[in-house]
Amino acid sequence: MEAVMKSHREELTFNTKNRRDYINITDKVDSALRKSGIAEGLCLINAMHITASVFINDNESGLIQDFDDFLEGIAPHEPISHYRHNRTGEDNGDAHIKRQVMGREVVVAVTKGKLDFGPWEQIFYGEFDGRRPKRVLIKIIGE
Amino acid sequence: MEAVMKSHREELTFNTKNRRDYINITDKVDSALRKSGIAEGLCLINAMHITASVFINDNESGLIQDFDDFLEGIAPHEPISHYRHNRTGEDNGDAHIKRQVMGREVVVAVTKGKLDFGPWEQIFYGEFDGRRPKRVLIKIIGE
Amino acid sequence: MEAVMKSHREELTFNTKNRRDYINITDKVDSALRKSGIAEGLCLINAMHITASVFINDNESGLIQDFDDFLEGIAPHEPISHYRHNRTGEDNGDAHIKRQVMGREVVVAVTKGKLDFGPWEQIFYGEFDGRRPKRVLIKIIGE
Repeated sequence: MEAVMKSHREELTFNTKNRRDYINITDKVDSALRKSGIAEGLCLINAMHITASVFINDNESGLIQDFDDFLEGIAPHEPISHYRHNRTGEDNGDAHIKRQVMGREVVVAVTKGKLDFGPWEQIFYGEFDGRRPKRVLIKIIGE
Repeated sequence: MEAVMKSHREELTFNTKNRRDYINITDKVDSALRKSGIAEGLCLINAMHITASVFINDNESGLIQDFDDFLEGIAPHEPISHYRHNRTGEDNGDAHIKRQVMGREVVVAVTKGKLDFGPWEQIFYGEFDGRRPKRVLIKIIGE
Repeated sequence: MEAVMKSHREELTFNTKNRRDYINITDKVDSALRKSGIAEGLCLINAMHITASVFINDNESGLIQDFDDFLEGIAPHEPISHYRHNRTGEDNGDAHIKRQVMGREVVVAVTKGKLDFGPWEQIFYGEFDGRRPKRVLIKIIGE
């Protein structure tokens, strides 16, 4: 296939009730892709904040809790004083580490106007320091 | 450089003998790139399943075993009952976490028709719940 | 937006004094983007070596030390003999694992000629086996 390049940009905003939360954003990314009119290309979805993550995994509530337990196990929120970062007055040292383990972004192939996914792939926003408005960027390039 | 955009898509399928396995797929990605005819662009390689990973590291068997030991250390397969996800009848809760730590995908630069790699970079498929056919997606865009 | 595709490639080289080091490279990536003349697209920044990382997080020295403590906690440099990889004569088994946890690369959206960042996003080179020249690749595609 050969064609000129197009691009499309959108932001999503989330304000979670809990400090940590996991939100399935696949439909929102799908909707951005349809708006873009792009048929072949790449779709970047990234957290714009450094205490949050965008990742792809299974939409199963037990697994989501397993992720949360795992992350609390390797980088627990408390004691707050464990993290040098928290000496700045923050209490989110753990959130920066959790986001790093889960990843900032995903890049998804776009094929025939659709997210080119395997059978179980779903896109999640992983919030590790919520209760305030935070943004996700969707950038699609292609033709 | 200026040119119209092209894209190319391929799937690889793996059916490993072991639950966990690590396969060097660099040659297969190279071959897809040659078929694409793309000279300048980006090459996305991602696991299409959520208990497997695509990552770039060293082709050294001791290191591969170190990765496996490390992953078993932080997210052991057993006891199966440790993971809420396994209450659904699955036994792969650990595999979802291992994949998350190792990453879903890599994006590799394409320059002058080649994977633009440092001296030791090799692309691996990391399987954490094998013994059944599972797929990897290669999507290349560029000119 | 519709336009023909352009691409731009640059390498950065780092030779850190310490085995492990964390360097803010945001300005260097910004400068590469300006040189590229690309207004809309994607910017890939990746370590070309497999014991180093490129990641996005906060430019706060306490946090950087927290990352280092965290990584030493889950994959300590010593004892050297802990890692099979080190039987090859290397002493950097831990560095391969640390890089895997922090990630090889980031992909950043390019919008209106700028890195499309949230308020605190900064790009870091994470070195886990330094004291020798090592490279980072910047590849930008777009229009």
